[in-house]
Amino acid sequence: MTEPRLDVLAIGNAIVDVIADAPESFLEDEGLTKGAMLLVDEEEATRLYDQMGQGIEASGGSAANTAAGVAALGARAGFVGQVAPDQLGEVFTHDIRAKGVEFATEPADFGVSTARCLVLVTPDAHRTMNTYLGASQYLMVEALDEAQIESAAILYLEGYLWDPGAARYAMIKAIDVAHQAGRQVAFTLSDTFCIERHRDGFNALIDGGRVDILFANEAEIQALAAIPNFEQALATVKDKVKILVVTRSEKGAIAIAGDARAEVPAEPVGQVVDTTGAGDLFAAGFLAGQAQGRSLEQSLRMGAICAAEVISHYGARPEADLKALVAARLG
Amino acid sequence: MTEPRLDVLAIGNAIVDVIADAPESFLEDEGLTKGAMLLVDEEEATRLYDQMGQGIEASGGSAANTAAGVAALGARAGFVGQVAPDQLGEVFTHDIRAKGVEFATEPADFGVSTARCLVLVTPDAHRTMNTYLGASQYLMVEALDEAQIESAAILYLEGYLWDPGAARYAMIKAIDVAHQAGRQVAFTLSDTFCIERHRDGFNALIDGGRVDILFANEAEIQALAAIPNFEQALATVKDKVKILVVTRSEKGAIAIAGDARAEVPAEPVGQVVDTTGAGDLFAAGFLAGQAQGRSLEQSLRMGAICAAEVISHYGARPEADLKALVAARLG
Repeated sequence: MTEPRLDVLAIGNAIVDVIADAPESFLEDEGLTKGAMLLVDEEEATRLYDQMGQGIEASGGSAANTAAGVAALGARAGFVGQVAPDQLGEVFTHDIRAKGVEFATEPADFGVSTARCLVLVTPDAHRTMNTYLGASQYLMVEALDEAQIESAAILYLEGYLWDPGAARYAMIKAIDVAHQAGRQVAFTLSDTFCIERHRDGFNALIDGGRVDILFANEAEIQALAAIPNFEQALATVKDKVKILVVTRSEKGAIAIAGDARAEVPAEPVGQVVDTTGAGDLFAAGFLAGQAQGRSLEQSLRMGAICAAEVISHYGARPEADLKALVAARLG
Repeated sequence: MTEPRLDVLAIGNAIVDVIADAPESFLEDEGLTKGAMLLVDEEEATRLYDQMGQGIEASGGSAANTAAGVAALGARAGFVGQVAPDQLGEVFTHDIRAKGVEFATEPADFGVSTARCLVLVTPDAHRTMNTYLGASQYLMVEALDEAQIESAAILYLEGYLWDPGAARYAMIKAIDVAHQAGRQVAFTLSDTFCIERHRDGFNALIDGGRVDILFANEAEIQALAAIPNFEQALATVKDKVKILVVTRSEKGAIAIAGDARAEVPAEPVGQVVDTTGAGDLFAAGFLAGQAQGRSLEQSLRMGAICAAEVISHYGARPEADLKALVAARLG
């Protein structure tokens, strides 16, 4: 096995977020479930956008946010995702490269525009997402560079990628390429609604030994196990993966690796402005910690530090110097 | 003269801002003058964008920001400006309408994209702007709706609009339509570099009686008068317009109308994050105050309150409820 050239290669939907404040009543009027990610078609995205207030646009996408965080921590990150040859595609490409992430997927014209996620931030800082997948659903297996996958110590995938059919196949192919090269595969369950859509597929991936490091939050691990009890759900899943990482919002996070178990509290945060990206940046911190050879506990703390930073401002990519933040807290 | 349907109709460049933090060294390396707005072509905009860090996109444009502020204060605002039929044009259109501003200028395909302004925010919160005018320079006189201009109590124009030739002609036409309908014309000098480019043109506009309300900051009024002394510059210009409004950053603002002179201090602001839009929002507050029949001093205070809000966050459009802010401070 050759020395890895990248620490983490993330594959996911390439999305530009359109972020706007919205009152609670907006969610009620639109019949939206707070905290959930809903897939919408272009017509519905346009209709909803017309109803939304003035927004800002910022590059997003769950696994892309994680890649940006890994790079911001000084580790070597790459990203694979499909954009269209349009302005938002240029924005996505610029932003992820500006973070130092290797991004080589060519824009492709499938007659649809770059993916957008309409993010509604309610006064309690929670985000409700409506995603138009656009070009990102056309991530074909042909867009993968096998040599790039083989060169990364960890391949990281988002559960959301299970939604588009083409990307689902590309994801499985990428996992197999990574494992054949002796690399680790990390996977995030993304959200409970995604699990409801794909529980059997996710469990088949995990039961089939295709996932080494699994990321979930409290609700997601229970949804995956279909067990409404946290410790029981943990017990059911933990032996199926090498490392199980579970975040619990203000209650901190847990990692279990075989017989080892580590727990950390949440990091203090001044004002929670927008929770978008909290899970993505937690994963970034944990993975970068693992890449640096840190312990389970130290890796969890890196995740908690990164998550605390990203929820202190609008947008799902880090703004502060994460490397300096971690150095100040952990040394 | 019929009762106006709009309080303020603003005409200006229709621009989407791309905002990114930049160290002081970036300005030095690129030979950029802090605080200035530089016009760049598409090639240079692309080159500079490649050098910039991860950004956020937010609708901007000087007069458009003012229109958004006027509407946020509960007054009736319209905007005229040219976008292209592309994604950033959709973003601009959505955002200004979401603020309640009447915006009816049709997107037009002149083979160029919607205008972008690359805004570099240095750690001292000052912004340095590089504008690619794109579609906004093709604001043709044919895009004007004379009935709309005649229906607005105040026509508001940005000095930046003097840069593109077609828009310059449209601006003069709009002024004449407004004056023939018995309406007021307000004008902002935009920035000192803009004045250097167009001092004769601006002075001809003002000397010709085409400007009723003139907005400037301290440096701009001195640049216009070509007199490096504040009070002397004021004395030279004040009798050429009905109302002269001059902002002085942390020193507050002054308005002179004939023999009347009002001064107010700057409003307190917690942390200055990004000064983009300070002048635009000051103008919004002053104009809305005038529309509400307030005194010079009260109108200045409204301007100061709006400017303080917009510099407390990234982006040049108000985020807080300006109407509530003014009600709390002024009643």
